[in-house]
Amino acid sequence: MPVRSFDEFPTINADRLWARHMEMAEIGPVEETGSCRLALTKEDKAARDLFARWCRDAGMQLRSDRAGNMFALRPGRDDRRPAVAAGSHLDTQPHGGRFDGVSGVLTALEVVETLNDAEIETEAPLMVINWTNEEGVRFAPGLLGSAWFAGRIDNETLDEILSTDGRRFADEADAVGWRGAASRDDLPMDAFFELHIEQGPVLEACGADVGIVASVQGLRWLDVQVTGSDAHAGTTPLDGRRDALLAAAAMLVELSATGRREGPDARVSVGRLKTATDGPSTVVGQAEFVIDIRHPNAAILNRLRDRCRQVCKEVAQAHGCAARVSDRFAVPPTQFDSTCVEALEQAAKSLQLSYRKMPSGALHDAANVASLVPTAMLFIPCRDGISHNVAEYASNEHLAAGCNVLLRAMLERAT
Amino acid sequence: MPVRSFDEFPTINADRLWARHMEMAEIGPVEETGSCRLALTKEDKAARDLFARWCRDAGMQLRSDRAGNMFALRPGRDDRRPAVAAGSHLDTQPHGGRFDGVSGVLTALEVVETLNDAEIETEAPLMVINWTNEEGVRFAPGLLGSAWFAGRIDNETLDEILSTDGRRFADEADAVGWRGAASRDDLPMDAFFELHIEQGPVLEACGADVGIVASVQGLRWLDVQVTGSDAHAGTTPLDGRRDALLAAAAMLVELSATGRREGPDARVSVGRLKTATDGPSTVVGQAEFVIDIRHPNAAILNRLRDRCRQVCKEVAQAHGCAARVSDRFAVPPTQFDSTCVEALEQAAKSLQLSYRKMPSGALHDAANVASLVPTAMLFIPCRDGISHNVAEYASNEHLAAGCNVLLRAMLERAT
Repeated sequence: MPVRSFDEFPTINADRLWARHMEMAEIGPVEETGSCRLALTKEDKAARDLFARWCRDAGMQLRSDRAGNMFALRPGRDDRRPAVAAGSHLDTQPHGGRFDGVSGVLTALEVVETLNDAEIETEAPLMVINWTNEEGVRFAPGLLGSAWFAGRIDNETLDEILSTDGRRFADEADAVGWRGAASRDDLPMDAFFELHIEQGPVLEACGADVGIVASVQGLRWLDVQVTGSDAHAGTTPLDGRRDALLAAAAMLVELSATGRREGPDARVSVGRLKTATDGPSTVVGQAEFVIDIRHPNAAILNRLRDRCRQVCKEVAQAHGCAARVSDRFAVPPTQFDSTCVEALEQAAKSLQLSYRKMPSGALHDAANVASLVPTAMLFIPCRDGISHNVAEYASNEHLAAGCNVLLRAMLERAT
Repeated sequence: MPVRSFDEFPTINADRLWARHMEMAEIGPVEETGSCRLALTKEDKAARDLFARWCRDAGMQLRSDRAGNMFALRPGRDDRRPAVAAGSHLDTQPHGGRFDGVSGVLTALEVVETLNDAEIETEAPLMVINWTNEEGVRFAPGLLGSAWFAGRIDNETLDEILSTDGRRFADEADAVGWRGAASRDDLPMDAFFELHIEQGPVLEACGADVGIVASVQGLRWLDVQVTGSDAHAGTTPLDGRRDALLAAAAMLVELSATGRREGPDARVSVGRLKTATDGPSTVVGQAEFVIDIRHPNAAILNRLRDRCRQVCKEVAQAHGCAARVSDRFAVPPTQFDSTCVEALEQAAKSLQLSYRKMPSGALHDAANVASLVPTAMLFIPCRDGISHNVAEYASNEHLAAGCNVLLRAMLERAT
């Protein structure tokens, strides 16, 4: 597909895009710069209603499904064609920021409004989506709306999920007024794009304007239980100890080195470590931790898991301890559609934006949608890589750049 | 002092000594083999009253002081001479064993009863002591009775200490009936011996019958706070992280190696490690732990502290983190009196017992008493080094061997 000249495309309205972010952030404000809109609360309802109003003002029709996912449709010249879709989520973390999810929905809306302003019609319809309960804070698991849409959760399971405050998902979706009857067949899609803040430091560090996301890395959690022997720290010589905390510490050091050896795309982390005893004068007899292993390549992810398991066994033995290592959780990597990735890349090039092709470190709704239709993601930098925090920030310039990339990719696809 | 021939000394009654242990253990029984007698509870009162009855039956007179410490006196031929004393404590841990402390009191009593049986008078009086609240479970700090006796805690402070259940120490000591008026001047001592289970694995491992304790190792606690930066485990490359838990883990490994380099008497331990966050997918921004450092030599102890501090600073820097290291607590090493140590050693030799000269890894009342009068300690092996646990066990043979050593050392000293 040849890159068109700059002049053939309209440019998005950066001021409007920013103003929409700020207006949305007034719903469920936290501190100066944060938002709290847990899924299917009254704040989420207010956000949905505001989004719906903007969509209607832009001439779109709204539908919703059993999971409360919202689909705003802009007709194409040929409405028998499946829609080119984009979106993300409007729910937030309890002390979340103004951009995580929100930017993906509002940039998709801005694409439609820009086309309206420029009086451009597309062949295929366009669709702007707000997925329900991406964050998974009030209802577990996260990515719930897109998981149900992708057929990964059945109707009954979805309906009966209880919120942290004990309410049924189905009742709460009804209560916010966005539980509809649309099915997947009613909402045919040609492609799905999701713009999102990176939630990491890579783009900022390398100075790229946008990230073109070709994959979502896979995840494996390993539970590790280390068993040594409780002892008195004053009376037990160092050589006679079976110190489970010391063994766990040596494992953490070696696990991190194991991750590093797999190159920059590997992530091996331990964020939770617990001991059975808590006395400063006790040699710890039992420790446990969770290894979080991520890689965009399934084969390397599995190899990393095997190596991490091996490291724990060997280090335990060297410390006179035993290690029990078990798989807790696994999500395979997602490879996005090459035509969608290519469309984003060409759009970035045509805008003379610097970009980096990268895997997504975090999970996103796009990973569920990718099992149904050609999908890709677009990242924009966020300050200091901070997210899930009121300090989360993306600049107006980066939002606008990302939105222009999204506009071009969607327009190419829909023409 | 020449070693006398074996025949000149009586031998203690091992059956009686064991039976007394078992009878005492019936007060505050826990599970099959444990005891719970927290200081100044009704169980402690029952233990004190039983001990007092045994002392009176053995012809001794009882006195007590402001701290509720109990002193049972057996007159000598010359009562102007200061007493040769021995003892330990009858209070226990909440799930404690039958030997920790108890053996020191009951072996001292057995020495007196053996001399009674053999109709042996000593020149100097003998004294059997039960120190109050050694364990420090119900009233903090531990070693309380002996610390007050040694002048390390003043009257007012002692009286006002509150128990974990909110009672004044003075009131509780009154309530058990053992708060007396005797002063240190009323209870002149020539020497103090304390027999105790080792509470560690050294004697069992080397097959020695007893341990002759020439010192109590000093203790230093360092608080370490490691500050990195919270990050998302999925999105943050390994190289860009400031992982406080990983840095802390690397410190633990290096601290242990630092301890090992100082030889077998050094103990460097971390038994408490906490993180500010607890998510398996979070790179930890804040971790803290306590380093427990012990050595019988003050100069080496201080050097170890300096090295541990240095290790934390260096490892933190290598991980892009900061470490704040502060002294929390320090107890200097205690050197016991060489004549008392020599008396125990000669007694063991005369009994053809194998012994090991060793520092005490744990603190004991003897460390307080040593600031007043010539003092030494005697250890007996305990199974698997286990203590502060209902599984704590010392054999009748080891108890008897230790008691015979104590008998000879006291007899030598009192003649």
